[in-house]
Amino acid sequence: MRMYDIIAKKRHGCKLNDEEIAFFVRGYTDGSIPDYQASALLMAVCCNGMDEEECTSLTYHMMHSGDTLDLSSLRNTVDKHSTGGVGDMTSLVVTPTLAALGLNVAKMSGRGLGHTGGTVDKLESIPGFNTSLSMEAFLDQVREIGIAVIGQTADLAPADKKMYALRDVTATIDAVPLIASSIMSKKLAAGAESILLDVKYGSGAFMKTKENAAELAELMVKLGKNAGRNMGALVTSMEYPLGRKIGNSLEILEAVDILRDGERSDARYVSSELASHLYSVATGTGIDESRKLVNETIDSGRTYEKFLQWIGAQGGDPEAVDKRQLPLSPHRFELRSPVDGYIGSADTEGLGMASCILGAGRTTKEDVPDLGAGYILHVSLGQRVSHGDLLATLYTSDVMKMAPACNEILASLHITDEKPGKLPDLIYKFIH
Amino acid sequence: MRMYDIIAKKRHGCKLNDEEIAFFVRGYTDGSIPDYQASALLMAVCCNGMDEEECTSLTYHMMHSGDTLDLSSLRNTVDKHSTGGVGDMTSLVVTPTLAALGLNVAKMSGRGLGHTGGTVDKLESIPGFNTSLSMEAFLDQVREIGIAVIGQTADLAPADKKMYALRDVTATIDAVPLIASSIMSKKLAAGAESILLDVKYGSGAFMKTKENAAELAELMVKLGKNAGRNMGALVTSMEYPLGRKIGNSLEILEAVDILRDGERSDARYVSSELASHLYSVATGTGIDESRKLVNETIDSGRTYEKFLQWIGAQGGDPEAVDKRQLPLSPHRFELRSPVDGYIGSADTEGLGMASCILGAGRTTKEDVPDLGAGYILHVSLGQRVSHGDLLATLYTSDVMKMAPACNEILASLHITDEKPGKLPDLIYKFIH
Repeated sequence: MRMYDIIAKKRHGCKLNDEEIAFFVRGYTDGSIPDYQASALLMAVCCNGMDEEECTSLTYHMMHSGDTLDLSSLRNTVDKHSTGGVGDMTSLVVTPTLAALGLNVAKMSGRGLGHTGGTVDKLESIPGFNTSLSMEAFLDQVREIGIAVIGQTADLAPADKKMYALRDVTATIDAVPLIASSIMSKKLAAGAESILLDVKYGSGAFMKTKENAAELAELMVKLGKNAGRNMGALVTSMEYPLGRKIGNSLEILEAVDILRDGERSDARYVSSELASHLYSVATGTGIDESRKLVNETIDSGRTYEKFLQWIGAQGGDPEAVDKRQLPLSPHRFELRSPVDGYIGSADTEGLGMASCILGAGRTTKEDVPDLGAGYILHVSLGQRVSHGDLLATLYTSDVMKMAPACNEILASLHITDEKPGKLPDLIYKFIH
Repeated sequence: MRMYDIIAKKRHGCKLNDEEIAFFVRGYTDGSIPDYQASALLMAVCCNGMDEEECTSLTYHMMHSGDTLDLSSLRNTVDKHSTGGVGDMTSLVVTPTLAALGLNVAKMSGRGLGHTGGTVDKLESIPGFNTSLSMEAFLDQVREIGIAVIGQTADLAPADKKMYALRDVTATIDAVPLIASSIMSKKLAAGAESILLDVKYGSGAFMKTKENAAELAELMVKLGKNAGRNMGALVTSMEYPLGRKIGNSLEILEAVDILRDGERSDARYVSSELASHLYSVATGTGIDESRKLVNETIDSGRTYEKFLQWIGAQGGDPEAVDKRQLPLSPHRFELRSPVDGYIGSADTEGLGMASCILGAGRTTKEDVPDLGAGYILHVSLGQRVSHGDLLATLYTSDVMKMAPACNEILASLHITDEKPGKLPDLIYKFIH
């Protein structure tokens, strides 16, 4: 078998078989296939597509290119994955809720990159919180309290890691078959029986339209099912930041707003829907019954109890969280509206970048984020604002970044004269 | 400007501007753009195409990536280029004919590769013939006798050379915009005022159908005109070897058959048509008048005289040629038909490979061809053959290659029971 022939086949729009895809993934991972052949094939896939069967093969071989987690000693394991958003702290609500409902959350989470945040960074803003448990300690903790979340320590899907780095510099990221296989290879390698995907659409998401997001969600659900997992996906809006607190410690505080103080917000709504659907998918319980259970669990404080127990188990300081004593960056600024009008729409990617500018995110993987940086957004989509109203409260350790971040927020909030019409759906669709 | 954005633009089917194409060609040539980005762009071009304006830019910047020949001290310079064929020795007839008609042939020719032959290899089969003249000696010779043909010594279109090597291993060769730009960048750098292209179609050609060949020819003619040259192209058949002698010294002998002995053959017909059209394009003479002049020049022996003068001027032995004393490889075999039937069609690429197997060609650029190897094909397309009739006489220096070459020839000649219908057009179309 020659890589040349595999490229030529896809370039001419033909379907690759499992053997060919296996050859490519193996060869690219071990270095026998050079970057320039891989990028040619990936571009041909972008242009000519891949069907479900090809994606299933690609996912399978990427998944098996490295370690796979064996969670078989645990029952009812669940996982949740978001395609990435701004102010998206739903994992902090969903995972302790499911653990409180008796399911096992053994989760590997990512770090933030670009305009999107990552759960691991957020958790590390809690003093003492350890996200690098040994595999044994990780499984033990799940067995004991039903939940543990760590960074990606195992060598999951190294083929995907290498391929993603190449796609990132060859304009071959935005192809549904490649995105779906990339995400699912890692999720499947992480071993959970039941997986719920939160596929974001809109100006702050990778997929700009709901239709494209739904297409991606459908393919990923199929890929998961083809690998024998219980699968579901919600397509949710990223036309505006989901939570109003954007940053790392700030998003932990938003979770406290919801779990301790019972705040009713977009973030609470989407979190409870995600938890309900994952519970339903994992246990076979009807969605209405699942919703009831989930909301009771959150409202009764059992989720918050589990949240604090979890933080304690991983070395974090539950009292600091409960007392909202998480460090915020020292320089603070109140950004006020320069005009009268309505928050008509937003460039949510820009709003994510503003947090990144303040120091909360990473431009490259090597950056170390300032966990106390970020901002609180005081306005919602569609809201009326007057000249001088408080738009946002910004936090940074580097005062030089304050003005550029304000600039980015003002450029990203589109304040219009006319009251906007229908707001985007927070949840577009459930796919299973 | 970033290469990433250029790739993304073409991946999404948009047109690249001159500045972007210049950036790519310059960056890829100087090594600042890596292979994996270049191959991604080239694949996107294969999938999404390039229009005439983009191809004109690509050709221009590749042409100017290295040396360009200044032939301005000569008047009426002409060049001829073939996309490559089997038994295609037309350059040996066309160039001395035009020189005999007073035009200036200052030509850089290629070497054979794969199943196709190259003029430089053929000329080197003449004892003493020197294809590596200095630029000064080259121009002097043209000034004196109207003709000189050398190998590609100058650094013509290094961008194309590097890009071609990459395309060769990434299945991005067969895209009309890339083929056209590649060929024309070198031809334009070689400096002639008037250029005639022989674009081959059929089983022994790169372009399998006449329509595809015509499309390529049309684009190349436009690219040449956009660069201010007089252009023409003939689309000619490679459904069967053009000459009946296939090899290096063997093809010199075929030229002698035509020029000294007045042999009327397919090769003679196509050669005189090529010469007539090039003469017409270069001088503005009507095609009928050009045909008359060309045929008179060949028939009167003036072309042959020029041919021998040219050989002598480049250090070759005209007497050896005239007496047909060119070395043929020592092992000789007569291949006879195993069946009765008609030569219905042929895999001409296979017939070219048979010569390559005998030692006449190159599999890689580093191979040194056996100039006396090859074979004489004794049958024509459509011809009736009986069991035991002589099909071919083979020559090789490596007797181990005789059986595989016979095998290849028998596999490539499709001998059928039924008399074939209409034979393919030797000349499909003239494009100007």
